[in-house]
Amino acid sequence: MVEPGAETKPLQEWLSQADTVEVVRELQHLEPIERAAAFRLLSKEAAREVFEQLEPVYQEELVQSLREDQVRELVESMEPDDRARLFGEMPAAVVQRVLAGLSQHEQDMTGLLLGYPAESAGRIMNPEFLALRAGMSVQEALAAVRRRGPDVATVYAIPVTDEHGRLIGMLELEDLVFAEPDERIDQVMDDEPHRVHTKQDQEEVARLLQAADLLAVPVVDSEERLVGLVTVDDAMDVLANEEGEDLARAGASEPLGRPYLSVSIFQVAHSRVVWLMLLAIAATLTVNVLSAFEGMLDQIVSLSLFIPLLIGVGGNCGAQSATTVIRAMAIDELRGRDFLRVIYREARVGLLLGLTVAAIGLAPVWLLFGRSLAAVVGLTLIAVCTLASVVGATMPLVAERIHIDPAVVSAPAVTTVVDAAGLLVYFAIARAILAVY
Amino acid sequence: MVEPGAETKPLQEWLSQADTVEVVRELQHLEPIERAAAFRLLSKEAAREVFEQLEPVYQEELVQSLREDQVRELVESMEPDDRARLFGEMPAAVVQRVLAGLSQHEQDMTGLLLGYPAESAGRIMNPEFLALRAGMSVQEALAAVRRRGPDVATVYAIPVTDEHGRLIGMLELEDLVFAEPDERIDQVMDDEPHRVHTKQDQEEVARLLQAADLLAVPVVDSEERLVGLVTVDDAMDVLANEEGEDLARAGASEPLGRPYLSVSIFQVAHSRVVWLMLLAIAATLTVNVLSAFEGMLDQIVSLSLFIPLLIGVGGNCGAQSATTVIRAMAIDELRGRDFLRVIYREARVGLLLGLTVAAIGLAPVWLLFGRSLAAVVGLTLIAVCTLASVVGATMPLVAERIHIDPAVVSAPAVTTVVDAAGLLVYFAIARAILAVY
Repeated sequence: MVEPGAETKPLQEWLSQADTVEVVRELQHLEPIERAAAFRLLSKEAAREVFEQLEPVYQEELVQSLREDQVRELVESMEPDDRARLFGEMPAAVVQRVLAGLSQHEQDMTGLLLGYPAESAGRIMNPEFLALRAGMSVQEALAAVRRRGPDVATVYAIPVTDEHGRLIGMLELEDLVFAEPDERIDQVMDDEPHRVHTKQDQEEVARLLQAADLLAVPVVDSEERLVGLVTVDDAMDVLANEEGEDLARAGASEPLGRPYLSVSIFQVAHSRVVWLMLLAIAATLTVNVLSAFEGMLDQIVSLSLFIPLLIGVGGNCGAQSATTVIRAMAIDELRGRDFLRVIYREARVGLLLGLTVAAIGLAPVWLLFGRSLAAVVGLTLIAVCTLASVVGATMPLVAERIHIDPAVVSAPAVTTVVDAAGLLVYFAIARAILAVY
Repeated sequence: MVEPGAETKPLQEWLSQADTVEVVRELQHLEPIERAAAFRLLSKEAAREVFEQLEPVYQEELVQSLREDQVRELVESMEPDDRARLFGEMPAAVVQRVLAGLSQHEQDMTGLLLGYPAESAGRIMNPEFLALRAGMSVQEALAAVRRRGPDVATVYAIPVTDEHGRLIGMLELEDLVFAEPDERIDQVMDDEPHRVHTKQDQEEVARLLQAADLLAVPVVDSEERLVGLVTVDDAMDVLANEEGEDLARAGASEPLGRPYLSVSIFQVAHSRVVWLMLLAIAATLTVNVLSAFEGMLDQIVSLSLFIPLLIGVGGNCGAQSATTVIRAMAIDELRGRDFLRVIYREARVGLLLGLTVAAIGLAPVWLLFGRSLAAVVGLTLIAVCTLASVVGATMPLVAERIHIDPAVVSAPAVTTVVDAAGLLVYFAIARAILAVY
């Protein structure tokens, strides 16, 4: 144990008055040893709050460096869903040891959640809820809230169940507060509430909470029995995580799943190498295309000068179109049935962009390289922009048809496909205009 | 008016039993005329709920197609913050006309919000709140909640103010429900609550609600007087929008700001053309580099065969690294002071990736094009991957230093910068190994 000496005084002072959110933020920027030392300076209550808000990867790191009784205390006081998230990150042996230290009740709760698939509603729900019965009066319901409230996930959105535990309604705490004490709760509850199933994808669940402005959504099993609640704060975390994953994929990496500075360079390289290799292999197509036209390049060397520019512009057009379409699909603005409409739109947008770029590029190329080459470059720009916009929109739409997440269609993937196609177009146009073989 | 005839019967039936979220989703996929017709079939109450959840662009479209008294009714019942969002989208003349039809109170509320800068806390807050006084008992506070609750933004997070309207605490409704009736509320409130200022950026506000798991955060003016509350449902919408903007920028487009299918192809082209032109102009650098080495290309045509492959791999490496760094900066995992640490990490990751790709590519190039060219291509791959990873990480970090949003550093922007630099490296290595000029 580090005894707080003269050196740690200012830090300790800052820690004692700073807000939890700030402490969490600062801790995540420290090196592991400093982090563990700073964490030990926190008061018991502050340590509990800070631990709860830390990313699972830092929680796990602290678990390794704290005494067993401290770990038990921290983990025991966590919400079951947060605990399940932490356990999902830890080596199985450590999970076993920590789990064994918990009370039977908390062991059961955590085991239940870990039984559901990763990224499902069941995994992120909180199984400790208060359920009311339809026959209760508002007064009785409020008494139940006062009695059980402090131990459950939330009292702001309260489920109502029948005698078999099946969900029959939801009410909000404000409904109870605003109602007369002797009203029956089936008169104030919403009897057609939103609900999700245990195996439903967590992103779908989060988007439902967002679209319907809910504070919590009930989770039911295959027999419509209530098994937990997903609260809005967990939904926000899910959306933030999914955003990170989508952005990583947009740059052709696998999501790291943990903070950047907390992973080794081998893990970073690992998250990128597969895509990089796949794209490099796909890019060998461009070598083949160029080999096929080597004779032309030999005759007119200046043709090669425009290769990076032309495929660059094409790649950018494709990336723009893919990004727009992927996003529109993610938030359900576009569906598979809009396929032809989207392709037709993107073809026109690409043509428009190609015409603009070609119009501006024509004069300088003409002046420096002559009329024929200017014509080749201009026509190629128009064709490549149109082609790239269509390809960029087609790739995510096709991905969805064959049940692949459209978000894996990254800008680099589109660029690579467009590169080879763009070169073919370039040489076809050059051959036609310059009459070379 | 369309009279509901035989044809619209099934639609009307579906509309009358479907959930608001589903109706909203379906409406957004219809053509404008169908959408207006379907909307008119909704019951008054359903129309109000659906209208509230529609994107502002569709709200505006409906405003154009409905009778003036219907519009007045719909707009009057909106929350002030949602109304401010809608008005931000509408032509000024229409805003004036609609505003004039509202009650004085609603006019004042909306005017207040529109006075704050776009994307600020003041713009998205709800100015209709219930504020308690510190001296009140819990019983009095609950009575105030019952009386005023139905008219205010939320009763789940309740601000406490002093006689000058300055924020001195926050409490949650559950605190009131769990407390004894005769306790004073300054005993149950949090007297160091999170707060934001009217001009603070909306994304910062939303991330605070997420990090601290708040249901609402109070907004104060420059004299710490309470002026409104930002609720968690608005925070989720903000995060979802920012996500869309970041993804658009990652693909080098300006965000459309409205649903893809609702904008004309000219608007789509407009959102892309500036970046496309800037990148095309930057890409002319590659033409200059190649011109400078035209003599080498003339001597060894096969050098040109690998140009798209090499700059493609480099561009992909750069995009991967930029995406990772931009994301880590957005969620505050990385800051400016981590600059050198990040560059050093990315240099090693790039080197690792370059070695991997080169190792796999060496044999086929050797077999097909000989030892010397294989050496040139292999060394270039290693150098370009390292360079690209460093450039990809540097660009967003530099952007932040000069106070530009790192998110504008798109994969295409990185690719374009890496293209020219990669070519220089390629020819330098080729000259050294092949001894050509």
